[in-house]
Amino acid sequence: MSPAPATAAQTSKGASTRCKLLERACGMAAKVGLEGVTIGELASTAGMSKSGVFAHFGSREDLVRQTLDWAAEQFVAQVMTPSMRQPRGLPRLRAITEAWMAWIAAHPDGCVFLGASFEYDGRPGPMRDHVAQMMESWHVALERAVTLAVEQGHLRPGTDPALVTFQLDSLMQGLHNARLHQPRHAQDLARRAVEDLFARYAADPADASAATPR
Amino acid sequence: MSPAPATAAQTSKGASTRCKLLERACGMAAKVGLEGVTIGELASTAGMSKSGVFAHFGSREDLVRQTLDWAAEQFVAQVMTPSMRQPRGLPRLRAITEAWMAWIAAHPDGCVFLGASFEYDGRPGPMRDHVAQMMESWHVALERAVTLAVEQGHLRPGTDPALVTFQLDSLMQGLHNARLHQPRHAQDLARRAVEDLFARYAADPADASAATPR
Repeated sequence: MSPAPATAAQTSKGASTRCKLLERACGMAAKVGLEGVTIGELASTAGMSKSGVFAHFGSREDLVRQTLDWAAEQFVAQVMTPSMRQPRGLPRLRAITEAWMAWIAAHPDGCVFLGASFEYDGRPGPMRDHVAQMMESWHVALERAVTLAVEQGHLRPGTDPALVTFQLDSLMQGLHNARLHQPRHAQDLARRAVEDLFARYAADPADASAATPR
Repeated sequence: MSPAPATAAQTSKGASTRCKLLERACGMAAKVGLEGVTIGELASTAGMSKSGVFAHFGSREDLVRQTLDWAAEQFVAQVMTPSMRQPRGLPRLRAITEAWMAWIAAHPDGCVFLGASFEYDGRPGPMRDHVAQMMESWHVALERAVTLAVEQGHLRPGTDPALVTFQLDSLMQGLHNARLHQPRHAQDLARRAVEDLFARYAADPADASAATPR
């Protein structure tokens, strides 16, 4: 890699330009997919020279990967971090799903992560592995939140966190995809489905008193 | 359009070549997306001349749309048609979900329809409308099957078919996407989640006797 990226990153102006470029690249990826994000396209939409963009990203592969990572940082900052301030258990799980639904609503052109899994599932290589690893760590974090809800006695003992995680994740994917053909009711349906899921696994008060928080 | 397509379609050999080409195009679409399906690419993978492919598809747009429609025909033939032979209500709904899971398992490179909704959600135009309309009609068919299960008294009176349809569809999307990062357990999780959903809305025997089949 040329020394240019380091130079650009060293200045705060360079850092803010990089953020603006990554935000723009995310917008492009949501519309046409990560494979549609090129240094040339990004330069022209940003009104910059290709060499100006190259100063921030060493290669197209570097740009695509950093675009995905930048989107992941936004997701963590907007969905996970605020939710972690809620008490562990159902309150935190509800905060995560509410913030997640807000994230989906805020990205009407589509979710970069789900788009990426569709783009790369048929393309073995480092990017596919990177996307798979990213989805996997998100699942681990979500399953941890579900596990805590069981340990807190908010969800019935014996509840399988992997199953509830799969159900929650599926509902969010359903909400994401529904925007194409039934955007009007999808938000309401998803919210009802989530509450329905929590209600199904809700612990009896007796179970709650027998909870074993860790 | 040139008269060639009609000529090719007129012969049974032409019809079978068209099917082979569409099957191949579906495989390409699953791997790289419908936008990656071009007459040139298809010709080279099929070992045919571009004009030979043009004899079956008047234009690239025509090829892409026919590829999606062909995939839809396969889905109906493999998922819906056999399920319609099952008694209306829960047996038919179970048959649909089982066949749907088999369809997903049979397409490890991805589902053309879900891929298409991701590809075109950010690209307004006739293809986006076509995909949205396709997803919408599938939802209508699925919701009809759920409604029958309520009318048959298999699902509790007052069950909202739109909500159960959203939940079922979401679980299948979750199964589809999970193949990227947790393919081993996804099939088992999806099956348990579906049974879990049916159990939640299962009617009491008393309700069943009060069923009003139409």
